[in-house]
Amino acid sequence: MTTKAYGAHAADKPLQSLDIERRAPGPQDVQIEIAYCGVCHSDLHTVRSEWGGTLYPCVPGHEIVGHVSAVGHEVTGFKVGDTVGVGCLVGSCQHCAACDEGLEQYCENGFVGTYNGPTPDAPGHTLGGYSQRIVVDRKFVLKIRHPEEQLAAVAPLLCAGITTYSPLRHWKVGPGSKVGVVGIGGLGHMGVKLAHAMGAHVVAFTTSDGKRQAALDLGANEVVVSRNADEMKAHANSFDFILNTVAASHSLDAFTSLLKRDGTMVLVGVPEHPHPSPNIANLIFKRRAIAGSLIGGIAETQEMLDFCADKGIVSDIEMIRAQQIDEAYDRMVKGDVKYRFVIDNSSLAG
Amino acid sequence: MTTKAYGAHAADKPLQSLDIERRAPGPQDVQIEIAYCGVCHSDLHTVRSEWGGTLYPCVPGHEIVGHVSAVGHEVTGFKVGDTVGVGCLVGSCQHCAACDEGLEQYCENGFVGTYNGPTPDAPGHTLGGYSQRIVVDRKFVLKIRHPEEQLAAVAPLLCAGITTYSPLRHWKVGPGSKVGVVGIGGLGHMGVKLAHAMGAHVVAFTTSDGKRQAALDLGANEVVVSRNADEMKAHANSFDFILNTVAASHSLDAFTSLLKRDGTMVLVGVPEHPHPSPNIANLIFKRRAIAGSLIGGIAETQEMLDFCADKGIVSDIEMIRAQQIDEAYDRMVKGDVKYRFVIDNSSLAG
Repeated sequence: MTTKAYGAHAADKPLQSLDIERRAPGPQDVQIEIAYCGVCHSDLHTVRSEWGGTLYPCVPGHEIVGHVSAVGHEVTGFKVGDTVGVGCLVGSCQHCAACDEGLEQYCENGFVGTYNGPTPDAPGHTLGGYSQRIVVDRKFVLKIRHPEEQLAAVAPLLCAGITTYSPLRHWKVGPGSKVGVVGIGGLGHMGVKLAHAMGAHVVAFTTSDGKRQAALDLGANEVVVSRNADEMKAHANSFDFILNTVAASHSLDAFTSLLKRDGTMVLVGVPEHPHPSPNIANLIFKRRAIAGSLIGGIAETQEMLDFCADKGIVSDIEMIRAQQIDEAYDRMVKGDVKYRFVIDNSSLAG
Repeated sequence: MTTKAYGAHAADKPLQSLDIERRAPGPQDVQIEIAYCGVCHSDLHTVRSEWGGTLYPCVPGHEIVGHVSAVGHEVTGFKVGDTVGVGCLVGSCQHCAACDEGLEQYCENGFVGTYNGPTPDAPGHTLGGYSQRIVVDRKFVLKIRHPEEQLAAVAPLLCAGITTYSPLRHWKVGPGSKVGVVGIGGLGHMGVKLAHAMGAHVVAFTTSDGKRQAALDLGANEVVVSRNADEMKAHANSFDFILNTVAASHSLDAFTSLLKRDGTMVLVGVPEHPHPSPNIANLIFKRRAIAGSLIGGIAETQEMLDFCADKGIVSDIEMIRAQQIDEAYDRMVKGDVKYRFVIDNSSLAG
């Protein structure tokens, strides 16, 4: 089944219109007509092979929302016309300890990414959501209960949403928690909204004084400009949990110092250049921890989508046509987006 | 009350015999004739002012065991002749959240260390266990139930023991846990013994092939020479918990890679030079954590002593006279001790 897509033939080539093949739905597959696809930093890193290992042609996109257009004959729970989503994962081994616990993102045999992952389908690696259509094992398809008019703004929940929701839940953020969110971008703006909706007292950390009002508008109770030492000091030893979404190399100590005894700072971004080595005394003298967290499992992603539907939470987005993607990447690199680009996939037909 | 002690008048001076003053026991005080005092790396760092901030004269020692020789009139629970211990703490504010939870080591107003801590007593800072006698608030005095003939070997439990026991308990090590202990010195050898006694499968990590049999003798189920990449690799993704006792700068990644999903590595030593910056992807892709832990609270120290008495656990020690302390320090720096020096405090009279 030939499908129009947008992708690149090489790391140094701009993205362009491509024709790709999608498999006919197998017995357990769901075929989805993609309405919108969010634009994640991972898309850019992968398509430009900045992490290495990119297979071409590369079609990025793992914040996918759309409608079911066909289902395999063994599929239950999905029918033609349903509004659905697909996130970062389209496969996992289904028999390791992590998969058994519904933590497919930690699959011990390696999950299959929505793009650049191994697949028997042509061309031998998965092709993502910058395309008109995708065929996905039903186990990796999520139900979307938001109103249809919010659909584009739901797309970023599939990566930015779950990447921030999962650690907030895992570390039991809720009423009474004081939570910091470092970096108010695609991930961070979701972290602020979600932590606020969970009932936490949310402090947004930004390097830019200009983002102060915007962070309050997202639901932050307080905003701290992290370059301001006095503002930072006023929050010393006070956080139960800090969600650090900043991948750029920066001092972790400035934030671990703000954790209470037994507090944890979770990092969700892999820095291109290492952060300065963290001060170990800062951990020892308050039994603090630095941890990492990766996206979320399928069951938890569904839980997050339902939570967001119940609370009326979506991402703040700027819609683009597929043809604007290179320009959008350039703006993302500069941090010039509030807070997520979403591709209108109907533009792929044009 | 003049008391013979061993200490230094300056960072660059050898330790020597000193006469110090101990206060008369107040209503809540316990006066202890010190039988033995363990020799901790912190003693050396402090007396040589390697961390800065040392006040002189400095009398180190916070692994103190002995017998009660007097009690204040309000003291209950201790009587003359009781065998008791004093560890790293002799005071805390008693009214912060940490103290309320029995975690005096994390006192939000700063605990009072057994040496080099603030005190109204002369000379204005606390003087430790390299002395014949000490007077301590009963809240910071521990009961020792080991047989009298083991008393010298109990001394190191007061710092090395609790520093390793507390994180093992906090991170719920027990039967079914696979636990790594990195560094088989004063702290690590206690970590191996304690984790083994808690029912864990214990793997000792050492840089020295020559320590293999010794680590097995301590109770390790397996020994890994950490310089051997193949031996390390065989344990990838397998540890629930790693207790890292090595303060010397080293690659943390080599050990975080060995943690299971959701595993934690705890550091209990402050490195003089920073460890190489840890690989954050290593944390993210398995939701691993790096944490710190500081000694233990008084209630937990008592629990540890009781646990050790029940299980017949003591430290492996080499007894010295106070006059040998500089030589002992030199040997400690070289790692030439199995596994803890303990001063026979009767030598102070000589």
